[in-house]
Amino acid sequence: MKSPVQFYFDFSSPYGYLAAMQIDELAAKYQRQVEWHPILLGVVFKITECLPLTKVPLKGKYSEHDFARTARFHGIPFVMPSVFPISTQHAARAVLWIANTKGRASSVEFAKAIYRAYFVEQINIGEAEQILALGCKFGLDGVELEQAIATTEIKDQLKNEIDGAIKLGVFGSPYVIIDDEPFWGFDRFDQIEATLKNGKI
Amino acid sequence: MKSPVQFYFDFSSPYGYLAAMQIDELAAKYQRQVEWHPILLGVVFKITECLPLTKVPLKGKYSEHDFARTARFHGIPFVMPSVFPISTQHAARAVLWIANTKGRASSVEFAKAIYRAYFVEQINIGEAEQILALGCKFGLDGVELEQAIATTEIKDQLKNEIDGAIKLGVFGSPYVIIDDEPFWGFDRFDQIEATLKNGKI
Repeated sequence: MKSPVQFYFDFSSPYGYLAAMQIDELAAKYQRQVEWHPILLGVVFKITECLPLTKVPLKGKYSEHDFARTARFHGIPFVMPSVFPISTQHAARAVLWIANTKGRASSVEFAKAIYRAYFVEQINIGEAEQILALGCKFGLDGVELEQAIATTEIKDQLKNEIDGAIKLGVFGSPYVIIDDEPFWGFDRFDQIEATLKNGKI
Repeated sequence: MKSPVQFYFDFSSPYGYLAAMQIDELAAKYQRQVEWHPILLGVVFKITECLPLTKVPLKGKYSEHDFARTARFHGIPFVMPSVFPISTQHAARAVLWIANTKGRASSVEFAKAIYRAYFVEQINIGEAEQILALGCKFGLDGVELEQAIATTEIKDQLKNEIDGAIKLGVFGSPYVIIDDEPFWGFDRFDQIEATLKNGKI
């Protein structure tokens, strides 16, 4: 069995969302699984001293145009969130806790539901109550989820995940690692596919 | 006749170089010409408060890896320059002066020669004397070129070109505008081709 594709993303990242809608199918085509790693770009940006794209002078307006155009180009539904960017620690912690307790498959399904809620359904998934509401729709116990994402254990787990990602060189979203080969950006999916197909390019 | 594709680039930009090696052929396939606009990213970065990619913590190492891999992926020769990034005002002024005096076709050929010198032949085209040497190889009068790129007129022309580009929203290299539709990055060439083929995407 080939090693899984490592997929790092922030729930506030439009290109992360686009990648999330395609990465499982792409990897499966080449007999790979995907390990999903929610991270917080806010922590990473303290090291890279970068701003969210939409906050950069000149780049901001272009970026919003490009998010929507790129989604259209790839046939992925997309509505620019009215609140953007947002903090995504509640979402990331919920996904980690679901992976811990219900298994990776459930946590990936929940991650996709969170992304769709934010980038299609205009739900502000930065708010803990929206994550809990999504959890209830998903058949989870709301009280249990609420308590779980507030524990020191889950906060530390997310912190450790992000530290580990930074040590691997992760600095953006989406960031994909295939057998030690790193790729930044949804626009590297052509090179990712070539690598999955042919090995190192 | 369809309006020409507007192509903005900095001679120190690896992705600008990759774009330069393909844009004329791509546009010609869809009956378009290309207007080449050398700019100075240093001026733009004062507004966007961005650093060259290779200077950004975490991003730097990845970027150099990605320049070479992306060039390989597209079958374009590439050697990472040992001096990087560089100031490219001499190169940009020379290209403008050639366009003024010898016509656009000559200036585009000279621009491609400058890019190849830097990203294939390891020539530091940040130095005025290297631009003059390239000019001589190109059949230009070295003394005339040396004087031309030191005039106030050509300096002002480049400054005005950059100001004009910034007013149009140009913030990076390569930056391509097709009938008012802007594209940033060599990795938008798939969307650029779709736009040339089908109109707005």
